[in-house]
This record gives sequence, C-alpha cells and structure tokens, in this order.
Amino acid sequence: MTERIFNFNAGPAALPLQVLEEIQASFLNFKQSGMSITEVSHRSSYFDDVINDAVDRAKRLLKLDDRFHVLFIQGGASLQFAMIPMNFLSKDDTADYVNTGTWSTKAIKEVEVQKKNYTVVASSEDKNFSYIPKNIQFSTNAKYVHLTSNNTIKGTQFHEFPDTNGIPIVCDMSSDIFSRPLDMEKFGLIYAGAQKNLGPSGACMVIIRQDMLDMANVDLPSMLKYSTYASKNSMYNTPPCFGVYTIDLVLKWIEEEMGGLEKMEEYNIKKAGLLYDFIDSGSFYRTTAQEDSKSLMNVTFRLPDEELEKLFVVKATENGLGGLKGHRSVGGCRASIYNATTMEGINALVQFMESFEKENK
Amino acid sequence: MTERIFNFNAGPAALPLQVLEEIQASFLNFKQSGMSITEVSHRSSYFDDVINDAVDRAKRLLKLDDRFHVLFIQGGASLQFAMIPMNFLSKDDTADYVNTGTWSTKAIKEVEVQKKNYTVVASSEDKNFSYIPKNIQFSTNAKYVHLTSNNTIKGTQFHEFPDTNGIPIVCDMSSDIFSRPLDMEKFGLIYAGAQKNLGPSGACMVIIRQDMLDMANVDLPSMLKYSTYASKNSMYNTPPCFGVYTIDLVLKWIEEEMGGLEKMEEYNIKKAGLLYDFIDSGSFYRTTAQEDSKSLMNVTFRLPDEELEKLFVVKATENGLGGLKGHRSVGGCRASIYNATTMEGINALVQFMESFEKENK
Repeated sequence: MTERIFNFNAGPAALPLQVLEEIQASFLNFKQSGMSITEVSHRSSYFDDVINDAVDRAKRLLKLDDRFHVLFIQGGASLQFAMIPMNFLSKDDTADYVNTGTWSTKAIKEVEVQKKNYTVVASSEDKNFSYIPKNIQFSTNAKYVHLTSNNTIKGTQFHEFPDTNGIPIVCDMSSDIFSRPLDMEKFGLIYAGAQKNLGPSGACMVIIRQDMLDMANVDLPSMLKYSTYASKNSMYNTPPCFGVYTIDLVLKWIEEEMGGLEKMEEYNIKKAGLLYDFIDSGSFYRTTAQEDSKSLMNVTFRLPDEELEKLFVVKATENGLGGLKGHRSVGGCRASIYNATTMEGINALVQFMESFEKENK
Repeated sequence: MTERIFNFNAGPAALPLQVLEEIQASFLNFKQSGMSITEVSHRSSYFDDVINDAVDRAKRLLKLDDRFHVLFIQGGASLQFAMIPMNFLSKDDTADYVNTGTWSTKAIKEVEVQKKNYTVVASSEDKNFSYIPKNIQFSTNAKYVHLTSNNTIKGTQFHEFPDTNGIPIVCDMSSDIFSRPLDMEKFGLIYAGAQKNLGPSGACMVIIRQDMLDMANVDLPSMLKYSTYASKNSMYNTPPCFGVYTIDLVLKWIEEEMGGLEKMEEYNIKKAGLLYDFIDSGSFYRTTAQEDSKSLMNVTFRLPDEELEKLFVVKATENGLGGLKGHRSVGGCRASIYNATTMEGINALVQFMESFEKENK
C-alpha cells in the first residue's frame, strides 16, 4: 500500500495530515535554525517559543484563567496514576475513585500499592463497565474525586461531570481532551497522555489548579512532584521536545483550522452520530455501551459472531481501514474516532460496513 | 539561514543527517503502513519490529549476553536518579556515590530526598570538578557504586572504570553511551537519556543485569519499578514510540555506517584529538579539564576574557557553528562533539577558531 489509510487506532492514533506535513517539511531545518526540531536545545529561544505557544494555546482553547498551570510530564497517564496519590494523599487523607473500566482500575491499583486511603464510591463493573454511574454519593472528606472521562476499551464517556460538592475532580482525559469545551470550575487537575487527541506518545499534558499545587507534597523526588514542573515551565530537565512540538501544532490546528473546541465538538458529534446511527439502523452490528453513556471517541461494536469479527478486521484492513480490532482484553471491534479522524474516514467506514454486511449476512 | 549548521549543542544535540533524512522520507507512510510512525499502534507488528530491532542492535553493539535487559523508560536520566535508590536501597542498605559534577550532585540529591543511606566516597569538587578521582576506597557493604561516566558541563570523562571489588557499578552514561566499547562485566545497570548520543529527548535507555533486577524492589508503583519494563519489553504502557524509532535508526547507523563501537571510538578520538591539539597548540584558548580527565564528548574551553567568549559565540553562530556557549552554570565555551558530529564540523570549528584568534588577539 503506498497511500495513507483511514486510521481508527485507539492510540497512538491518527494525527491531522497537515500537522504531519508541516513536521515533515521542516524536519531538517526547523524555523531556519539549521537544525531539526529533534536537535534544537531546549534552552534555546526556538524551543521556548514552541512550549510557550503550546501552553498559551491550551489555555485559550480551554479558557483557563491564571490559576491553571499547563505542564508536560513524561511517563504517560500511567505515571500520573501514581503521582496523584503521591502528591495529594498524606497519611490521614483519603480520595474517592469512580471505577468505569480498565484505566480507572489501573489508577486505583496505583493508590493501593502506595497504601494510601481511598474509597471506590461507584463502579459499573456489575454490567461489564458498559455505562457511566449516576447519582454518586461522594465522601465529604475526600481530597479529590478521581474520574476517567472516556473509556477507550468499553466505549463509554462522561457527557456530564458529577456535582462533587466542591471537592476537586482529578480526571484522566487521555482519550477526549480537547474534543469538547469543558467547564473547568469543577477540575483541580486533568491529565492526558498525548497519543490519542494530542500528539505522539511520550508526553503527557497535566493541567493543575493553583490550590491543588499548593497542597501537593513537595517532599518527593524532583521528577515526581508537580511543583518541579510548575516552577520550571516543565523544563527542570530536558522535556520530550518532539512531543511538545507536535502537541503545539495539533493545538494550532484545533484553534485555527477547526475553529476551537465548540466547533471541534460539533464535528465530533456529527462523526460519531453518523456511525452510531448506521449501527443502530440494523441488527448485524450492535454497540456495547449503554445509550446514555456512548463515547464520541471510541465506538465499540460487535458482529454476530467472533469469526465474522475477525474477517471484518481483515477485510477492513485490506480496504484501507486500519485499527478496527477491539482491545485484546474485550475482543469485538472498535473504531476510535478522535479529533483527527475525518468525516471522509467515517463515510468510508460506513460504506465498508454496509457492503460487508451484505456479503456476510 | 537556509542550510544546516554545524551543531555543537550539548543535548538535544546533532543527529546523523541520514537518520533525519530517513525519518523525513517515511514520515507520512512508515514501512507502507499508510500511517506515520507517530500514528502506528505500539501493539502492532510495525512497532514490535522497531523496538525489537533497537534492543537487538544495542545488545550486539555492546556485546551483551543474555543476562542483560535493554529497556526504554521515560523521564530522562533525572527520573533514573530517583528510581535507582527506590529500586535497590531498602531501609538498611547503602550505596556509594562518586561526585564528579552537576549530574552526580543531582543524582545524590534524589537519594537524599528519599532518606536512603549513601556515602560520597570520592568527589572532585575541591578543584571545581575539573578531574576524575582516582584510587577510590569503596564501601564493602554498598549495594552499588554510582558513577557519571561523562560530565557534559565540566568536560571530564572516566577513561577507565574503577575496580569496585565486585560491587556492581550503576552508571549514568547519558552523554557517552555507544561512543566506545564497554567491558560490561563491571556494570549492573547503565542508563542514558537519549538526547545526546542516541536520539531525541523523551526516551531513556536502561540496561540492567538480571542479578540487579532480581534484587530490585517490586513493592512500588508500576511505572517506577524496573520489573514492569523488563517483563513487558518496555510496553506496560505506551512507550515513547518516536524516540525508540529514532534510537533504532541511530543504532543502525552506528552499526552499519560507522562500523560498530571500536570504529566509533576511533572516530571520536580523532575528532576530539584534532580539537584539543589545536587548543593546546596556542595560549588564546585553554581547556578547563585536567589532562588525564578530558572528555571526548564535551570539549570545554575558555578565551582570554568573558567579553571575548560572548563575541566568540555570536560570531560562531553567524558562521554556521551553533551551540558553542558553555553551560549557564559555568560560563565559557563548549563544543559538544557526540557521535553524530562530523570531522567536517570539527574542521570548520578549528578553522573558525584560528581566524577568530587572529582577529581578536
């Protein structure tokens, strides 16, 4: 195959073509520096401009006021699972966790291993994580409430965030950050591994509010405390420069090409709507998430049997539609349709699904 | 400036041009996948081939036997400063540290903050870290001896590693890994942030021997214990794929273009020799490191006064020679001449230094 495919991978995932083209075009000579972006010093004005632009764009897109710090940390969301309790839970503190699937479960495991106090205040495990819990009773003494906004594996998503009685929400938004506007008032910290909606793997964006930073533990190794990153503009040591650079270009694309988060959300609703409507219109394919919890980012679906699912993935790949296999832990099929997935891609997928159904019904 | 400069940055630093060209050429369509390397799933055969090739090449180049694991971890050498005591020092254990400059000092700080036991068995701080200590008395009960093989800021380097009476050496080789062959018998663990001799920032290579892994603490957050990376081929979570990919290409370049580590070392000796010989031949420039400790990777030097040093850096930049300013903590000048720096670059630098001297003597 010599052309680009329609990429439905769950992450690393599709990036906007024009971002990739800009990286490619300037790869040997970034901004007339005579160097590749991978060769430029992080202590140079070239890179200062990049990281500051990325921070500014993130702040504008999410309408963040001066209380919020935008940080870049390595280690993905998985390191955040550990850093959050490490920074916010002292011996007598406790936190609330809502368990909506694999990623929440992993986040909880990292509190457990540190022997910190926590309560799982809600879980959708009883129905195989096919829904987002509602009417949750939060603890009154929790330091934070931890949520996973979107569940890539089970295909569910918080469409509204719960009222936590003023307890700050700490939220893993790896798979839906910048896919819609957010009311940031509720959030004390949000974090997102870049490789779904933001850029390449290897960089994690963390947005932390000043009051959370003020109560974070500073008696920790330098690379494991938020204060290190906040006080040094994420450059205590060499940051993941290529990742930050790509994120900057993606945010520029959202802001200048897509028209901001309201427009981005409209587009995402349109894309997911087309796909869900098609699936719901027949009985050959069926979605796995409950109606009110369906994700706009990851459309998980099943076919009549597993043999057909295997064939579906093989034939789709042959037809230039990649990454449609469900997560290895659940099977089935999944179309990850993050920001950079195009309507053209969704149309091609629906068309393929129609013809596959006809041939295999 | 529209052409590429000669890049003497200390890190991120110059990468081999042919590596950059290969990345650029395949950036929109990696190995006919129809995706960019930044869009390919880390659970795909595309990426498996990349990471396995990188591991195999590292093993061949360093002649590692089956006891050694090659891992990719995020967070740079700075996270290793913390992970090493976290993994290897239990309550009653102790470790020896040799302090040869800024990076060793930072490594020691991260043991201190964890309230672990350690002894600084040697330091060259008495002479502004201008030399590598010799005849060191190591503790008999140390779990490991920590060294920094090359000091980018002070321009010194271990040319021979000390006899530690069988205590495994844990070594930060961020700035000279793969610049020369190594007798791996002495080392229990070596680590290197990629952005000097290996690739872009955001990936750290860790080579750990099985007996070290066997004694590492497993009662830690997943992302902070070596066993997680060793048991999952560095893919417990999404690894820094672009970094691993670039490292693979750099290792391929060392192996196939430069002819392996013996040849690489010869080339590095020739490059550094040319530069040191020129500096030593006159009195306008002077090196800062003691003769027997001079680094083959970072040539630190001074001019008659600070005004001339400033002018030198400005004029060099105008002449297409970048990154010659000394580290902000010490001033002066520095030419970082890692593997990817070419003899052509050294010749251009020497030529410029000659003419600058004539004009400003």
